[in-house]
Amino acid sequence: MNKPIASAQPSRGPSDHEVRAQIVDAATEYFTRYGYEKTTVSDLAKEIGFSKAYIYKFFDSKQAIGEVICANRLAAIVEAVSGAVSDAHSATEKFRRMFKALLASGSALFFQDRKLYDIAAVAAGSPWPSVAGYEEQIRKLLSDIVLLGRETGEFERKTPLDETVNAIFLVMKPYFSPLLLQYNLDAADEATAQLASLVLRSLAP
Amino acid sequence: MNKPIASAQPSRGPSDHEVRAQIVDAATEYFTRYGYEKTTVSDLAKEIGFSKAYIYKFFDSKQAIGEVICANRLAAIVEAVSGAVSDAHSATEKFRRMFKALLASGSALFFQDRKLYDIAAVAAGSPWPSVAGYEEQIRKLLSDIVLLGRETGEFERKTPLDETVNAIFLVMKPYFSPLLLQYNLDAADEATAQLASLVLRSLAP
Repeated sequence: MNKPIASAQPSRGPSDHEVRAQIVDAATEYFTRYGYEKTTVSDLAKEIGFSKAYIYKFFDSKQAIGEVICANRLAAIVEAVSGAVSDAHSATEKFRRMFKALLASGSALFFQDRKLYDIAAVAAGSPWPSVAGYEEQIRKLLSDIVLLGRETGEFERKTPLDETVNAIFLVMKPYFSPLLLQYNLDAADEATAQLASLVLRSLAP
Repeated sequence: MNKPIASAQPSRGPSDHEVRAQIVDAATEYFTRYGYEKTTVSDLAKEIGFSKAYIYKFFDSKQAIGEVICANRLAAIVEAVSGAVSDAHSATEKFRRMFKALLASGSALFFQDRKLYDIAAVAAGSPWPSVAGYEEQIRKLLSDIVLLGRETGEFERKTPLDETVNAIFLVMKPYFSPLLLQYNLDAADEATAQLASLVLRSLAP
């Protein structure tokens, strides 16, 4: 593919990929300032200097843009959590770190980018595909940790793996779902530490 | 106390207690039909045939009436749960029944009396004293079951009792808090069964 040339006529120059990224960047900034619910595609178009029709060439709807923003943000959370888990030495420690990092990332989004958090909450309420993908990744991370702990002998092996993973997923959900986290922020550090200990007791061989 | 005489002039005849009950009954019916948020004390007064000022002699605000309705409803849930637990033979079985009965009562409120459920959700969000009382009663029921299981040898005794009870309380909360239950109704029967099993594994001696 040729390197696209930046141009005042956006229908020519830059690649589709670049235009999409430009729209998503501008929308992220705009939503962060004014909120997702109140913003229209017209507002966005005006802000970026594109026509509304041009934006619709790349995204079917405002939600489609919100989806990408949401997916980006949730991917960043998964990356942070994976990073926190990776250099822990035991499955036990990985599990504690996973729960802690999930809460930390979610809280950061809530307290620092409240308006983006609101997109995530809308997304989790509907739910959007980006949220389903996020939940799948968390389930996978968790499943890997449980499997590791079963291999190292840290965790029991009698309970069917699916049931173990699903039940722990449900214990953690109020602290990683943007829709639920807002109701569970009180004393969430202590709550998640106690819940992690309960889960680890339930995993004892 | 003399038996109060029913009267067309409500400021004389019936006892305060009876008038309060009459207002609460009428308000329960009214809120069930039209919702709590949209109803005013004037609407209620008109419905009952009292003056607004007369209602204010008994209740400081609409919320004060809502508080009593909410407390009544939550007390009925606690009673149902206590009943379900009482004739179980082991602490293990009591715990499973408690979790199941909490979900059943909460779901019934949600699906049958949706508008009363909405009062409870408002109450849990604020939170109102009736909800704090409800949560304390659930914590007490739970604590009694854990203590029993520790005495019979069904449950481990190493973890501090407070921590055990609080962590289990947190696991159950998404299924007994009216504010959270609405987001957790999908597959809630299976979810609570799996969570109960996880909790029981965590309690193993």
